[in-house]
Amino acid sequence: MPDYKAPLRDVRFLVDEVFDFPATYQAIGATDATPDMVSAILEEGAKFCEQVLAPLNRSGDEEGAVWQDGVVTTPKGFKEAFAQYVEGGWNGLSADATYGGQGLPHSLGLLIAEMVSSANTSWAMYPGLTQGAMSAIHAHGSEEQKQTYLTKLTAGTWTGTMCLTEPHCGTDLGIIKTRAVPQADGSYAISGTKIFISAGEHDMSENIVHLVLAKLPDAPAGTKGISLFIVPKFNVNADGSVGTRNAVSCGSIEHKMGIKASATCVMNFDEAKGYLIGGANKGLNCMFTMMNHARLGTGMQGLCNGEASYQGAVRYAHDRLQMRALTGPKAPDKPADPIIVHPDVRRMLLTMRAFNEGNRALAYFTAQLLDLSHSPDAEEAAAAENLLSLLTPICKAFMTDTGLEVTSLGMQVFGGHGYIREWGMEQLMRDCRIAPIYEGTNGIQALDLLGRKVLGSQGKLLGGFTRIVHKFCQAQAEHPQLKAQVAELAQLNRQWGELTQRVGMAALKNPDEVGAASVDYLMYSGYVVLAYFWARMAVVAQAQLDAGTAEVGFYQAKLATCDFYYRRLLPRAAAHLAAADAGSECLMRMPAEQFLA
Amino acid sequence: MPDYKAPLRDVRFLVDEVFDFPATYQAIGATDATPDMVSAILEEGAKFCEQVLAPLNRSGDEEGAVWQDGVVTTPKGFKEAFAQYVEGGWNGLSADATYGGQGLPHSLGLLIAEMVSSANTSWAMYPGLTQGAMSAIHAHGSEEQKQTYLTKLTAGTWTGTMCLTEPHCGTDLGIIKTRAVPQADGSYAISGTKIFISAGEHDMSENIVHLVLAKLPDAPAGTKGISLFIVPKFNVNADGSVGTRNAVSCGSIEHKMGIKASATCVMNFDEAKGYLIGGANKGLNCMFTMMNHARLGTGMQGLCNGEASYQGAVRYAHDRLQMRALTGPKAPDKPADPIIVHPDVRRMLLTMRAFNEGNRALAYFTAQLLDLSHSPDAEEAAAAENLLSLLTPICKAFMTDTGLEVTSLGMQVFGGHGYIREWGMEQLMRDCRIAPIYEGTNGIQALDLLGRKVLGSQGKLLGGFTRIVHKFCQAQAEHPQLKAQVAELAQLNRQWGELTQRVGMAALKNPDEVGAASVDYLMYSGYVVLAYFWARMAVVAQAQLDAGTAEVGFYQAKLATCDFYYRRLLPRAAAHLAAADAGSECLMRMPAEQFLA
Repeated sequence: MPDYKAPLRDVRFLVDEVFDFPATYQAIGATDATPDMVSAILEEGAKFCEQVLAPLNRSGDEEGAVWQDGVVTTPKGFKEAFAQYVEGGWNGLSADATYGGQGLPHSLGLLIAEMVSSANTSWAMYPGLTQGAMSAIHAHGSEEQKQTYLTKLTAGTWTGTMCLTEPHCGTDLGIIKTRAVPQADGSYAISGTKIFISAGEHDMSENIVHLVLAKLPDAPAGTKGISLFIVPKFNVNADGSVGTRNAVSCGSIEHKMGIKASATCVMNFDEAKGYLIGGANKGLNCMFTMMNHARLGTGMQGLCNGEASYQGAVRYAHDRLQMRALTGPKAPDKPADPIIVHPDVRRMLLTMRAFNEGNRALAYFTAQLLDLSHSPDAEEAAAAENLLSLLTPICKAFMTDTGLEVTSLGMQVFGGHGYIREWGMEQLMRDCRIAPIYEGTNGIQALDLLGRKVLGSQGKLLGGFTRIVHKFCQAQAEHPQLKAQVAELAQLNRQWGELTQRVGMAALKNPDEVGAASVDYLMYSGYVVLAYFWARMAVVAQAQLDAGTAEVGFYQAKLATCDFYYRRLLPRAAAHLAAADAGSECLMRMPAEQFLA
Repeated sequence: MPDYKAPLRDVRFLVDEVFDFPATYQAIGATDATPDMVSAILEEGAKFCEQVLAPLNRSGDEEGAVWQDGVVTTPKGFKEAFAQYVEGGWNGLSADATYGGQGLPHSLGLLIAEMVSSANTSWAMYPGLTQGAMSAIHAHGSEEQKQTYLTKLTAGTWTGTMCLTEPHCGTDLGIIKTRAVPQADGSYAISGTKIFISAGEHDMSENIVHLVLAKLPDAPAGTKGISLFIVPKFNVNADGSVGTRNAVSCGSIEHKMGIKASATCVMNFDEAKGYLIGGANKGLNCMFTMMNHARLGTGMQGLCNGEASYQGAVRYAHDRLQMRALTGPKAPDKPADPIIVHPDVRRMLLTMRAFNEGNRALAYFTAQLLDLSHSPDAEEAAAAENLLSLLTPICKAFMTDTGLEVTSLGMQVFGGHGYIREWGMEQLMRDCRIAPIYEGTNGIQALDLLGRKVLGSQGKLLGGFTRIVHKFCQAQAEHPQLKAQVAELAQLNRQWGELTQRVGMAALKNPDEVGAASVDYLMYSGYVVLAYFWARMAVVAQAQLDAGTAEVGFYQAKLATCDFYYRRLLPRAAAHLAAADAGSECLMRMPAEQFLA
């Protein structure tokens, strides 16, 4: 496994120079998050991820999580690392101070989460799921539930899960079978089987708080009849201590392609004691609270695995000697040149850089929106919420699909060695392959984007973003070095709106047009969004060079990568545009049975 | 693991209706390969692959090949399956009858190899490498070497390997360190370490014949100083029986992402007895004999894993019930509709079909060229050889890259279940991931195509193919149903030549332009090549429908998939064209050290 070094210089570039997080922190009253404090947190976080988590990544993959008789043992060192994480205060970093958190901005939590998942994706699942449970209880729990559960989750003595999927349904939660029967004491008896439950059982905390979707006896059919319940692994005594074992158990864990150290559990509920949260039949709404945050986190996994892969590939490209440069030897004293002299190796590395750094910009912009959605200025908060809503499915799907491509390229740079486990490059691709699937498949994200967000808002949510791009393009139209890119961005931005109109009109006549266009529509959107962020980054980099910065190399690399993105990756947008425009007929005309022939 | 069913209807469509293999067999004098014989062989081959090899695919992945103290044990059933394979005469199917083979056409061998590798890619590696060794000895061995080794390899009592790669070099064979010192008895003492040797050690045959690249003491530097040696695991007695153990041993096997049942060996040669084959310092030429065949075979791996993945995905898409069709319920009696009603699921399945069936057409056309390159008509043979030379790197790279995409889509159709090992879908992606790497990375294939084949022949080899496409387009320009596709194909074909001219001109000034354009050039070529084969297949299908065929569904599916390919996949060609046109400057301007920042 390549050593992981947190890319702090790039983080600061975005936080300080491109997006001005300090100004946002001031605006939302996060007075504790001073630049010095933020800097110290990033450095400490980097140290923890580099020194504690990264060394457990390969061994975690080899050992895997192990199930025996209902008990799950995590790989060596995982438990101790979690104890250190909790002790360091990382678990409650951006949690509500009322319940023991540090109350720092959400964006800061995401910056740390990026490093954690880059260093060790499997390990990151345990605190990651806990964050989801915390946000659901924070948003929907009663004060008593918060005192009982949220304080323990924030402290990290307990961890959390999200129990949605059942053997016969994942996307289609309207048909879940898990039942909740009201009991005389106000609790509910929960019965059913949940699958694919990350961190459902493990040895890292003294209790596990499951958030479980189930149906009440009189519930309406479909998604309107789903309720959310808190089901602790151990019942909680009146004094908050852990009591008797609840009737929930782990029946087995899955054997998976990757994230093998993350326990993916089958959870059996057998009249387990549960507590309604967020009101009867309001479960799906509550879940969405968790899911928006989780979808951004999942999108970041594409960036995280991609970043780790780039770090391995770029070092290998400097060390590995193979063939001579076509323009003549570059290391004549060595038996061959380092492979970074070869244009195609550079193409692979630059593709990786362009997606990673572009995706990071998208992720941080979105993280900033998460902060701004809590702004005291209601209008600003609403605008941020709308943009967040639009960008979340793009983050989730585009960043994971391109992240998978990046991890595959990282293997390719290594040649045959990339396929060998000990180098760790193939693990990154295996770990990454789940990201386009879980937290709503990328196909579902695309439907969410095009159907629910864009067309569902009559284009209003999209307009909120394309206007920002439009204004940027107007302001930079005459930029001496970047006007060509800005002109191209402006054109793609216009075409985005036009494509939306065409698909919207077609969908009025035939609802299948939405599903037919959706994935290519999302990918088109992602390429345009990244083109915007690359142009923004290039403008900042050029300004620094013009101002006589000492870090010439850093900013020149930004400009070179931007140029590469526009010339070699952005042309893919046109292919997605054509495919999104192709209509549903070429998908729907073939009868289902002909697919089997 | 999804059950494997050999796609015999599609095989026959190509063999009989599109490419007319029987006519070729007549032309090359392969009189044994009558249509009835071919049909019987395909059916028997299908049965063996479906019933013997496919059931060992999942268990082979779980067990893996196991190394202990120099001995490699293959997974349960592998050895027995190989014995059955040999007994069935499959190993020598297209081998020279002089040395015990059945002398059937090479194309027929490849049709069977497709089924074998679709059913069990890891297992297929053992006979696959043997074929490579057989063709090298057949082409370059002395009569004595053929009698000694080729007869045993053909009979399948012995197997073969290709020993090229060393720890410090794979692509750059000019810098190998393995040495061959002449001995008094005319043999050579071979010393060195070879890695990534597939089938280097195993328990399936009584002897293993290694073909080893090494350097003679007085050899010139670089690739002109490489010689090829036969190094048997057991020395061969005068009567041809197996004698004493030679000084070659397996030091360990690699732990890999996939093809885990294929033993990838570190082979140590410690003054092992070897025999020169093909003349001193002619080793690389000899290796190319093996490699062209092997590259086509590796390209087919993309098709094979893709076909197996499609078979799994299409069944799951019929069985899995999830959500309702946006146009209203299609299975109102069930809790949800089968997911094949959803346009995006169909998009994934059609992408898989379009690549699989298009790649199969490309592979079979190329296999036919392999036959024709042995035509008694020298002009026909030379023309076939030229086309083969052009298409081989496209087969290898385009079919494996798209095959990897297909296996990834197959996982995606399964949602979360695609990531779980027991379903077998993720194994297909892991197994497939090696194909873009080995037998020359796809980057190397692209350099071979653009640099060596296309520009190296001053465009002559390319012209040989684009003329075929041009004539087809002229002939079909007024096709009532397909003229739009034909017009688009004609335009892409023209652009192919124009792109080649531009890159060629640029390369005269700067050799880096070749490496900068190569991979996108190859992918552009692949999309155009598949567009040609899809148009050809559609013309045949339309003719069958016009003639009142009873198999309406089969031919309609061909037309629908062709339409899908042109509307939704072929637009990617333009993105590759733009990237190939982008020039080397955006790759080369960034100093190597800036990549590390």
